[in-house]
This record gives sequence, structure tokens and C-alpha cells, in this order.
Amino acid sequence: MISFKNIQQAQARIKPFIHQTPVFSSSLLNSWLGHDIFFKAECLQKVGAFKARGGCNAVAHLVEKGQKNPALKPRKIVANSSGNHAQAVAWSAQQFHIPATIYMPSNVSKVKAQATKSYGAEIILADQRAEVDAMVEEASKQSGTFWIPPYDHDDVIAGQGTVIAEALIQPFPEYSKEPSRQPHYDAIFAPCGGGGLISGSFIASRHLAPTTQVIGVEPALGNDASRSRQTGTIQRLTNTPGTLADGARTLSISERTFHFIKQLDGFYEVDEAAIIYWSQWLAHLLKLRIEPTSAMTMDGVMQWLHSQSSTTRKKILVVLSGGNIDQHTNNLIWQENHLSTLPADKYA
Amino acid sequence: MISFKNIQQAQARIKPFIHQTPVFSSSLLNSWLGHDIFFKAECLQKVGAFKARGGCNAVAHLVEKGQKNPALKPRKIVANSSGNHAQAVAWSAQQFHIPATIYMPSNVSKVKAQATKSYGAEIILADQRAEVDAMVEEASKQSGTFWIPPYDHDDVIAGQGTVIAEALIQPFPEYSKEPSRQPHYDAIFAPCGGGGLISGSFIASRHLAPTTQVIGVEPALGNDASRSRQTGTIQRLTNTPGTLADGARTLSISERTFHFIKQLDGFYEVDEAAIIYWSQWLAHLLKLRIEPTSAMTMDGVMQWLHSQSSTTRKKILVVLSGGNIDQHTNNLIWQENHLSTLPADKYA
Repeated sequence: MISFKNIQQAQARIKPFIHQTPVFSSSLLNSWLGHDIFFKAECLQKVGAFKARGGCNAVAHLVEKGQKNPALKPRKIVANSSGNHAQAVAWSAQQFHIPATIYMPSNVSKVKAQATKSYGAEIILADQRAEVDAMVEEASKQSGTFWIPPYDHDDVIAGQGTVIAEALIQPFPEYSKEPSRQPHYDAIFAPCGGGGLISGSFIASRHLAPTTQVIGVEPALGNDASRSRQTGTIQRLTNTPGTLADGARTLSISERTFHFIKQLDGFYEVDEAAIIYWSQWLAHLLKLRIEPTSAMTMDGVMQWLHSQSSTTRKKILVVLSGGNIDQHTNNLIWQENHLSTLPADKYA
Repeated sequence: MISFKNIQQAQARIKPFIHQTPVFSSSLLNSWLGHDIFFKAECLQKVGAFKARGGCNAVAHLVEKGQKNPALKPRKIVANSSGNHAQAVAWSAQQFHIPATIYMPSNVSKVKAQATKSYGAEIILADQRAEVDAMVEEASKQSGTFWIPPYDHDDVIAGQGTVIAEALIQPFPEYSKEPSRQPHYDAIFAPCGGGGLISGSFIASRHLAPTTQVIGVEPALGNDASRSRQTGTIQRLTNTPGTLADGARTLSISERTFHFIKQLDGFYEVDEAAIIYWSQWLAHLLKLRIEPTSAMTMDGVMQWLHSQSSTTRKKILVVLSGGNIDQHTNNLIWQENHLSTLPADKYA
């Protein structure tokens, strides 16, 4: 079972390669809400998403094991993905000069394929997703070839847990003049797709800040994790959900992540209108390019704040998981103008 | 005549209030271009633009003079603007607890008016721009009332010069592990509207890095500064230019800024297609929300690189001046997909 020690090991392994991402705050948003929201900007991470941390830790751990036992030396890394994970694995393998092959569906966007190629990976396209999955499985049977899955893997989860392990010892931005001051958060919010990020966040937070609530957020259209929590058994979607939050379109979480997701202090479902609303507002307030999957989390924050009996000013940490948005999704988000409705009015 | 000493004084004055903004780099972009481009992210500045620096320095200097001579004590700050300058002045006055009134055309966007109001300023709307200008002039005649113009003012220029004064002693991001290393840039690029930012940049750069070229960039649709350089006298546009680069829609530069604009090492005009292209690409690569006026600068960089006889790897600093984009402008930028044409192909 993965523990905080694995996250600490991951931190040491990936430190030379990844960015310590900044924590931002919007004084306008805070003045409107009467609470202090801090945003951990993993959209500014290598490859534009927290996925770089998990991929890097997984590859670095393989390299470590190969140094101890030459029979385990990784000679090739493979992955199947059309999203951030593809770029994360390609980039991670490149850091250690290991050849990588990424299997992608042929409808992958040119810009994502190009980025993956720019990180030095070979790309193999197949028409059907099932074909892609079969090809990576076949490839991973070759000796010296290792397959890095997007979330159902201890090293990936431990790597992703470093987001919160790092954030919990970063000073609040407004305290930058007294950097010794340790932040304390009432709650941490992260999006939930396959559950790797929220699981890693839970482990790190429970160790470093046991009284801080850890809360997951999921699109209502793809609410498999939420229903899994409600029913006590893993629920699987039959079709890829049509949510704008493309980082949370996974069909199901895994036993490995469900173990932690079960223990979360809260879990919220978010509708598409709220995903669009916060995608516009967070971009506007923070001046960051933020994926809908990240922006969605703010509606969970609002639901949680609404459920609180006390009106004490809260300190909340939100993980902005990534910033990769294609032109089509961008246009769906900005079709109508939601900046004319202030958050304080929308949630009044 | 404004000098580097004024910029140093500005730095000391505004330091407690403004952000030291980060410098970012895209390893993908650098690998494609074969040069190292560094981006000073003033979009992450207070009020989302470098304008906070000029406004803050102007107000702080007024306060300083008022402390020495109570007859000069500022009791009210006024400005006329529908853009970033309005928010910058409102926010700056708020830092010093001085009432501010901002005169705006009544077609100002709700989100900009709301932000200005949230910074504690009173807003007075008038139908016509000429009426707005007359009202602020009238108001400024009141004793104890001070009018802060957007660029034709020494304190504003000195404040805006702190962007480059700060950037030139910030370590390169990739050198963050050896923070003592001083960066050297071959060239600095900044957008030119009224010319305050590029003038301040010129003064700071000539003092701190005399061999670094300082280059201005302007939309071709509003090329008054470029034509002023060519003719040797200030050229004035008759109508507000319809460029997407709304930070560069000023009708003319001033004598004060022309003095420095004349001395720049280069100056480029950028067409609207290139403004759209780089607005998409910089948002995608840097994961920042960047105004078209900022993104435009990259086309100037490409023109300059193309004009260089040597192919030595260059180090270039680009000022991302701001991040305030409304929904309408956002949609104009993202109408078509330009992320399918890589920069290396577009400029081949």
C-alpha cells in the first residue's frame, strides 16, 4: 500500500526535472467570496499538467531499479493515451534518454501529437481505441519494455501526490515577505478522473495536515467515482462521457484509487454550465490558461462553502491540474459571455 | 528628463504593493526556433497588467510630496480610461486610501467597470469619449485632485520602466539552481501603444545592459509610432484603429515618449493575422492568458530573428504586458485553429 514515504521518495526523484509551480490568489475573488482561495498552478508544470510528476516518478523509479539490477534496466517506455499522459510519458522518458513509443487513436489532435513527437517519442496511430490498447499491451510484453498507465500505478500516484506535498510547505503568496510562516488550509480540492491525483493528494495531506479536509470533484456527466462512493463498489460508465472536463472522462476509477477515494472528506458533482462558468472566470481572474477539468473544481468549492454552518473566513487550496485546451474546446467555453455574472451573484 | 534614477526610485516606492512577476520559457518553442525566448509575465501583475506599476508609482510619488508639503497632499485621484489604466489607477489609489474617480465611456464592459469598482473607485460614465475627457479635465482643476494620464507622465513611465529593471536582474528560469548568474539578453521586445512601456524599458535597459537591443512592436493597423520614427515627427491617427491589439489603439505617442522611441534599436509592425496566430500559440505554450497586444510582440521577434545575419542562438526577453481579454475578443482570436500550423512552418 502506497504511503507518504513513497511521495517523499518521488519528490527527491523528480525534483531535478519538474517545476516547483507557484501558488496564486485573486484578491478580487477573495473579496467577493469572503474566503481565501489559493490556486496551485500545475498548468505551469512541464507539459502543462501535473501528469509530468507521475510519469517522471515512474520512469525515474524504473531507472533506479535498473541501476541496482541490470536485468531490470528499462530499454523502452510505452503508453497509450491521447491526452496529457502521452506528453508526460514522452517527456519523462526523454529526461532519462530512454526511447518511448506512444500509441494514440488516429483522431488525436495534430498539436498534441506534435508535442509528443517534440519530446522525442515515436507515435503509433490506430483507428480504434481498443486497437490502441491491444497494441500497447502487446508491446509491453517485450523484455526491457515498461508500460506506464495513467493512474492505476503506485509510482504514478506517488508522483502526483507531490503536488500537495509541495503546496503544503509553500508559503501563502501574501506571506511571501515572511516565508517561514507555514500555511494551513481548511480544505484541499482536486479534480477526480481516474483518481490518481486525488489519491496522492489525500495521502500527502493526511500526513502533513491531518485536520485539512480533502475533497474530490467530478463532472456530473461522468460521475462514476461519486456513484462508487455512494454504492460502496466501483461503478463503471458504459460510454465515454461527453463532458467538457476531458481530464475526467475516464470510465472508472481503480481498486487502487478507490481505496483512497472512499476516505475523502467530501465529493461533489459539477454540471457543464458551472464548468463553463468557472473556466471563463478563473482564466479572467488568474490570467492562466486552465483546462475545464481544473476550473470545474471551483464549483465544488462553492458547494462546500454553502454547506458550511460557520461563516468563518476559510483558507482553501485548489489544484489547477492542467492547461491543455484545444481550439474547439476553447470555443465551446467562450461561446457566451459569463463574465457579466459575478460569482457572488451567481451563487447568491 | 526622466533617467534611470527615477526608475530606481519607482522600484523602491512600489515594491511593497506590486508582484515581482515570474519569467517563463517554453522548451518546446525554444527547441523549434533554435533560440531562447524568455517571457516577463506582467499579465500576472496586480490588475493583470504592467499598468499597475506606473499608476502605483504616480500615486506613491504624490503621497510622498504631500508628506513633505501638506499643501500638495493628494485628496483625490482621477483618470479617464476604459482599459487597464482605469483599474491600475483605482487599485493604486486604494493602496494609499485616497478616493479615486474614474471617468469611463458608457459602453465600457461590465466586467471592467465592476473590477474598477471593486478596487474602491467611483465610476462616472459619459456617452462620448470627448465628454469623458472634458469631465476628467474639469475634475482635475479642483484643489487636491490629481489626474494620472496613461503614459504621458514621468512617474508613469518610470513606474513602467521597473518591468525591465526587475527582469534584468532576475535569473533565467533554467538557471534557478544557480541564482547568482546574471542573465544577458541580446534583445528586449515590448509592445508600443502610447509608448510609456517601451520608453521605460529603453531607459532601464540602456543603464543595466547597454549592449542589449531594445525593440518596439506595434500593430500595422495603428502604426503611428512606426510612421513617426520614419518621418521624424509625431504622426497622429485620425480614427481609433480597429486592431485586436486594444492596448495599442492610442492615436499618437507624445513628445515625452517619442524622445525615447526615436532611439530604439528597431521597430516592427505586425498584421492582424500574426496577432491572432501568436495569441493562440503563446496561450497554448505558456499556459497564460495573454492580451493580443502582448502576443503581437512575438511576430516582431520573428521578423528580427529573420533579419539577423548570424544564426547564433539568441537570448530574447519579451514583455507580456497584460492578460485582460474580454469574451468578444477571445472569440475573435479563437475562431479558426492556428495551432495546427507550427511556428517553424509558418515562418519557414
